[in-house]
Amino acid sequence: MTQSILEQLDAVLSSRKDGDPGSSYVAGLHHKGLNKILEKVGEEAVETVLAAKDAELDGDNSKLIYETADLWFHSLVMLSHLGSNHQQVLDELARRFGLSGLDEKAARDNQS
Amino acid sequence: MTQSILEQLDAVLSSRKDGDPGSSYVAGLHHKGLNKILEKVGEEAVETVLAAKDAELDGDNSKLIYETADLWFHSLVMLSHLGSNHQQVLDELARRFGLSGLDEKAARDNQS
Amino acid sequence: MTQSILEQLDAVLSSRKDGDPGSSYVAGLHHKGLNKILEKVGEEAVETVLAAKDAELDGDNSKLIYETADLWFHSLVMLSHLGSNHQQVLDELARRFGLSGLDEKAARDNQS
Amino acid sequence: MTQSILEQLDAVLSSRKDGDPGSSYVAGLHHKGLNKILEKVGEEAVETVLAAKDAELDGDNSKLIYETADLWFHSLVMLSHLGSNHQQVLDELARRFGLSGLDEKAARDNQS
Repeated sequence: MTQSILEQLDAVLSSRKDGDPGSSYVAGLHHKGLNKILEKVGEEAVETVLAAKDAELDGDNSKLIYETADLWFHSLVMLSHLGSNHQQVLDELARRFGLSGLDEKAARDNQS
Repeated sequence: MTQSILEQLDAVLSSRKDGDPGSSYVAGLHHKGLNKILEKVGEEAVETVLAAKDAELDGDNSKLIYETADLWFHSLVMLSHLGSNHQQVLDELARRFGLSGLDEKAARDNQS
Repeated sequence: MTQSILEQLDAVLSSRKDGDPGSSYVAGLHHKGLNKILEKVGEEAVETVLAAKDAELDGDNSKLIYETADLWFHSLVMLSHLGSNHQQVLDELARRFGLSGLDEKAARDNQS
Repeated sequence: MTQSILEQLDAVLSSRKDGDPGSSYVAGLHHKGLNKILEKVGEEAVETVLAAKDAELDGDNSKLIYETADLWFHSLVMLSHLGSNHQQVLDELARRFGLSGLDEKAARDNQS
């Protein structure tokens, strides 16, 4: 079975959720609590906005990609902290746009 | 070939990028320009943070999922506006975490 | 007695706090509740950041001033909603910087 | 003449603007540039939002006051970095609300 990057990442985040706070950055964030995680979501959103403004000027998107990855990553930590995961977000997007997303994982499982 | 939800969504966003501003919400955002798109990214980040605080209290994650979907969606519009896409963000996450993401699409294509 | 702009503004905000929701923008915000007020604080913060980036490029600060005023204004509504006011914020700033702020109002009262 | 806390603070910020980056926090911010200052504005906005949510629950506004002071302070550094100051923001607020703010400093000068 092929797992998507987000599925793999959710598995990593889940495994680190209850780790020793000193054992990983993610375990440390969970230990500090929701406010610290949300501060990071907010910070990364602003850094993404600044990177987008700079990318529009200089045509280099590398920092924009880096900061958006930071933003999505901390969103995933937030979801994990509250007992949700990326699949629920993708399902919501699929529902809105009439995409075949809800069947996606099943289809892929059948292939493997 | 099975396309992931994000791949499908990127295709939708791409098709709407150069549409008539009145034809869709996405076309309208592109027409208004980067600042308007970034205002939406910022707004949705704050609404996500508020929904997370409320979810922690009442144990209901439905608004959190909804707002995170809004945040990711407007991130995708931002990436599209600047000529990037979700795959570059996932590749960056795969690189950081040593995930097998870079081979993901190729592997899936081979299955189909 | 001369009242500062912030003192006058706090008085205005206070008088509108319990007004009919349809009677003023401020009364409407209070009626919608804290989340709506905080969404506005977040929105105006992002608009201020975008205006600052644009001002750095084009040398025109007028939008920056306008958006910062929006940010401060919605901060004042937030403080009012939660039973605080601008003077407590100024006192905190005076304390940090060793300014003679704590005596400010008294000094001014004595002049009048 | 009595100076308001914001006038005194603007004077402090102005004196530190061109200082050695290691000499003060403010000089360091200016040296790092506008993006770093705007990241701080964004961070403090999110921390203010979180503090407001917590204050609504526990009835303790002390962290809210602290974070709002941080937000206004970094707004003032931003204005200083771009050659503006708090008085222009207050004048804009006075203009909107029909307050006697534009005459404020003159009135106070006449008293002293």
